Order: sequence, then structure tokens, then C-alpha cells
Amino acid sequence: MQSDDIKYMKECLKLAEKGRGNVEPNPMVGCVIVKEGKIVGRGYHKKFGSHHAEVNAVNNARKKTQDIKGSTLYVNLEPCSHFGKTPPCTELIIKNKIKRVVVGMKDPNQQVNGKGIAKLQKASIEVKTGILKDECLNLNERFSVNVTKRRPFVTLKIAQSIDGIIALNNYKSQWITDIYSRQLTHSIRSNNDCILIGKNSVIQDNPELTVRLVKTSKKPVRIVIDKDLKLSNKYKLLKNNPPLTIIYHSSNKKTLDLEYLKYMKLKSRKGQIKIADILNNLYFLGYNSLLVEGGAYVFSQFVNENLFDEIYLFIAPKIIGNGISSFRDYKINRLADAKEIVLKEIKILDKDLLLIYKNIK
Amino acid sequence: MQSDDIKYMKECLKLAEKGRGNVEPNPMVGCVIVKEGKIVGRGYHKKFGSHHAEVNAVNNARKKTQDIKGSTLYVNLEPCSHFGKTPPCTELIIKNKIKRVVVGMKDPNQQVNGKGIAKLQKASIEVKTGILKDECLNLNERFSVNVTKRRPFVTLKIAQSIDGIIALNNYKSQWITDIYSRQLTHSIRSNNDCILIGKNSVIQDNPELTVRLVKTSKKPVRIVIDKDLKLSNKYKLLKNNPPLTIIYHSSNKKTLDLEYLKYMKLKSRKGQIKIADILNNLYFLGYNSLLVEGGAYVFSQFVNENLFDEIYLFIAPKIIGNGISSFRDYKINRLADAKEIVLKEIKILDKDLLLIYKNIK
Repeated sequence: MQSDDIKYMKECLKLAEKGRGNVEPNPMVGCVIVKEGKIVGRGYHKKFGSHHAEVNAVNNARKKTQDIKGSTLYVNLEPCSHFGKTPPCTELIIKNKIKRVVVGMKDPNQQVNGKGIAKLQKASIEVKTGILKDECLNLNERFSVNVTKRRPFVTLKIAQSIDGIIALNNYKSQWITDIYSRQLTHSIRSNNDCILIGKNSVIQDNPELTVRLVKTSKKPVRIVIDKDLKLSNKYKLLKNNPPLTIIYHSSNKKTLDLEYLKYMKLKSRKGQIKIADILNNLYFLGYNSLLVEGGAYVFSQFVNENLFDEIYLFIAPKIIGNGISSFRDYKINRLADAKEIVLKEIKILDKDLLLIYKNIK
Repeated sequence: MQSDDIKYMKECLKLAEKGRGNVEPNPMVGCVIVKEGKIVGRGYHKKFGSHHAEVNAVNNARKKTQDIKGSTLYVNLEPCSHFGKTPPCTELIIKNKIKRVVVGMKDPNQQVNGKGIAKLQKASIEVKTGILKDECLNLNERFSVNVTKRRPFVTLKIAQSIDGIIALNNYKSQWITDIYSRQLTHSIRSNNDCILIGKNSVIQDNPELTVRLVKTSKKPVRIVIDKDLKLSNKYKLLKNNPPLTIIYHSSNKKTLDLEYLKYMKLKSRKGQIKIADILNNLYFLGYNSLLVEGGAYVFSQFVNENLFDEIYLFIAPKIIGNGISSFRDYKINRLADAKEIVLKEIKILDKDLLLIYKNIK
């Protein structure tokens, strides 16, 4: 029944969520096995490299000496059909004579993408797909971007006044948003592998770019774009303190890598380092998520190359007026060329507002 | 009992609301009379110049031949104590031997402001004030501004991208928000006595500034600031079509008033017409609410003079980048000088978002 399918898929999503922070870059997956209207096995993917959710659910059922023959298996992501770190889950399902499989979303990974489902169907197992698809896609949006676009998931984080201003012209404008927004920002930082800012932001704000206002063990890597290597080590980010700082440049100057300070040379194209090249390199280095914290020139570059997935827009209840607006270096001549995004979530903070937009094109 | 007081005050507010659109510039007032735990009389102010809510509630009770001696009277606004278009309500209350009066808010009108309450207390009537005060203040916020500041209630209406841009530099940017937002804008127009725009907006957009997208009989007056009388009658607003257009200027050029086109000369101070002078004049002419529709220069003037009460901020889910930001002519050097406002309401439209901010200082 449709309503039962939704109920059990919700349970999968709840289980899957438990893996957050430990399974990356793998997807979060939860699985329940239902027989005669009762859940007889539960499992989720706990840690990168360990058992898949399906294996854990089957083992969980067996522990209770449950015979799962003829049961229905629910899982938020298509079961794998290839040999990876673990044997394919499709084989496990077939071997255990499971009768029906309900899948939330196809695996976006090219190696799977429908092949797991096809294998099950070939073994005469009834497969239903697309239950709570949006919720499933949403849960693993980062994983999907990683495997389909082969780059980190990119979040632009902007703090502005209601009129879109992120800094006064004289740059004497820390902080526009209040302490609650900044705390939330630190929590968002802790959910990303790296944090990027441009050279000008280093000069104007001299930030540490670390996670201080929330408790966490996560220490995202700091990334700076400094094409001509203008930054001296007087700035906090270049002081060879943990965590690592990576400087992307295209200069011929000599650089000296230190323990916590690495220089990465990339070709300049049409006078600038392409965001695409930076993301390529970060992905190659194993970073799967990137938080971009400014400034306007950097934000504009990400929009220009259409290389971002979401925007966290903090809006302080104030009018600044004349100043630097958040995307002022993104230039269009026709309104039709405005970059369209989609509002996904609204959070009312103490006085500020957080709008979360997604880039769907 | 506190909870009963709240219950009956809510009833007053509901009744008061029925007068919206008909009582202005009077406040919206509702009244209930409660005896032995039952409502025995209900009334509200129906039309400018007609009976006050208290009179209607007393008459309503009498119609049912109810003796209201010893009862409690609830009213969202302090009863009047002066002879205006009708005799003072305090006398009516005293004469009818009402025992207790519960008031939502004091009358901000200098002629009353506590005097009504004092008169009741002097007659040994128990008076309780401040029940649902915020709701009461909110309902009659326009009236309060009118009588305390002696100017129209001012709403700035802005349609912008997430980065605060209201127009491209080449002005080819109609429309930023979608049809649902524009429909809502027309409905907001119909709730105002007049609509104001600057000369540049006339030149760039050549708007009609009428209420077309919603059904209503209201026809707000159109106001244009054109200091040096640069606008010719080729623009729709100056074509001598109804409703009235008023042009504020400070030029020595000859002007010719027509049936639907009036010229109003005001002194220029420091090279510009002061918003304060315009609002003064509009209030003198009997206009109690003003909707300001742009552009950036005009919005900035209202903020500069701190002469606005609320902002309706429509945000379209798009990034425009380089362009004209909503308050770009408001200039400050320190973040502490940013104009602070308060978020009061969020409305999710089709794709756009409407944020309603209040100016509380």
C-alpha cells in the first residue's frame, strides 16, 4: 500500500540520517525489511568503507532469527550492483529471496544508475521506485553533485542588509549580521570540507576562517584565491597555523610550502583563475563540499561559471544604502539573463533571517 | 479573569476590523458588553462620522432589552472623553452604570490620551488597560501615525532580486517580480490614499500607477516629485486622465492645472524638495496613507529623513548582479549608522517572497 510504503521509506530516511558526518563521501542510506506488516530488520550505512545499509538490515533480521524470505525491503537509494568495497547488495537481496523492493531514488553514480534495479527485476523481484523521491534526493544532494558533476558541492554564504549590501565602501562593516547568525555560520562551516574566500576579503577582514562559535571536531581546510600572490604572511590565514590553508595562484613567484600552508598553481585563463579549475583540483584532493564566504567578486565568479549548488542568504534587518552589493561583478544586459534560483527554506533567527536558495539549472 | 478578558478583546478586534476601508481617517473600533459571563451587546464603528463602537454596543444591548447595569465593557481603543462628531463615550458608560471597562490601548490622540480612562476612574469604574495591546496597536497603526505625527502613514514598496537590485543599469528590467507579486502590489495600492514615484521612474517605466490587477473601487491619487518640471505630457501620468496626479516641484516655470493634473510648488531646501514638506502638504490635503514605489533615489530620501513606517520588500528568486540597488543614494560611513528596522511578517508568494519590515524608531 502506498501509505505503508511512505511510512517505511520515512523510517529509512531517519536511519540514513544517522550516518551523517561519518559516511561521506558515500551517500547516507537506511534500510528496513518488512514482513507481514512488521519491521523485522533495520540497518543503515554507519561509516565510510563499512557495510551497506542493506547488509546491516539483513544481519539485524537474522540476529532475531527472522526468516526474511518473501519480505519487502525498503531503501532510500538504489541497491548497488557492482563490486566496490563490499559485495553487491542486489546479490544479497536475490539470495535471501526477498519478494519486493521499494527504492527512494536511483543511484546517480554512473556505475549503478538503474543497473541495480534492472538486476533485481531480472530475478523476478517486484521493484517500486520514486517513493519520497524529493526527500531522498535532498538527503543525498551532496553525494549526487559529487558523483555526477565530479566536483565538491558548493554553498555560497552571504551576510547582507535588506538592500543586498555586504560591505560599506570603506569596508568598515564587520559585522552586518548578529551573533546568532554568526554562530549558525560556524555550524555551517563545520559541515563543509573547505571554506573559500578571495584575496580582498583576506586584506579587508583578516579572518581566521575557523570553527570557533560551536563545538565540533571538524576543521575545514581554508582556501584563498590569490592569483598574483599579493598576500604576505602577516594575515592570519597565512601564518602556518592549523588547519591547512591552500592558496590558489597563477604566479611565477617562488612559493614555499609549509606544514599548514600549501600553494597550488593553476593556469590563468583570460586573466583569471577559473572556478572550474579550482573545484576540479579540490575534488581531486578529496574535498567534497565547499563553503564560499566572499567577497562580491568571488560570489560573482561562481555565478558567472554557474558553479554553485545553494545559497545561504543571511539578511540583517537594516538598510546600508550605498556600498558593495553581493554580486556586483556579475554583469548582464537583459533581465532574461538574471540567474534564476529557487527558494527552499526560510529560517527566522533572532533578528536576522536566513533564506536558503537552490541552484537547479 | 485574564483569559476571559483576552477572549472578549479578540471579539472587539474582530468587530473593529469590519470597519476597515469605511472609517478612515477614524480608527477601527469594536466593543462588546459582557454581563454574567455572556455577551449582551456588540458594536463597531461602521463609517466615518457615524456612531462610535460603544454607542452601537449599548444600543445593541438595549434592543434586546438587556439591562447593562453592573456589566463589563470591552473596547480596543480608549473611550473618547471629548465632544467631537458624537457625544463622549465616557458619559454613556457612566450613565449606564457599567461597572468595569477593559481597554486595549490608549487613544494616541492628544485630545484623549488617558483622559477618557481618568474620567471613568473618577466615576469609580474599574479600568483595565493593555489587553492584547500589540494587536490593538497594530490594527490602528495608521491612525496612530496620523494623529501623533500629523502626516500620512508611509509604506515603501520595493521589488528586487536577492542581491537588492531594483533595475539594470540600462533600465531594461521590467518586471523583476512575477505576476502574483504584481497583483498583490495592486491590492496594496488600493489600500492607500496615494502612490508616489520620482521623476526618473516616470521617464524609465512610464507607468500608469493605477489599480488594475484587482477589483476595487479605490482610486489612489498619483504623486510625482519633479523638482524642475522636466516631465512633458507625453507620459501616461501627465495625460490628464483620472485619477488625479499631483506634481510636486520647486520650479518658477508656469504651470497649468487641469482636471486630473495639479501642480504643487514647494520650497527647495539644499537643492531638493524635502519629503517632510510633501508629507505635510499631503496630510493637509486630507491624505492619510502613502505608498512609495521608487526609485532608489526616492527610497533613499525617505530613509534619509526617516519618514517611513513600513517596507514591503518583494524578493524575486534571481541574481541580477551589477545594477541599481534599492537604497543606493542613502550614504553612511559607519555601520552603526545603518537604518535599523524590524521584520514583522513573511509571505511566501508563488516564487517570490514578501518581507514586511517596520520602522520603529
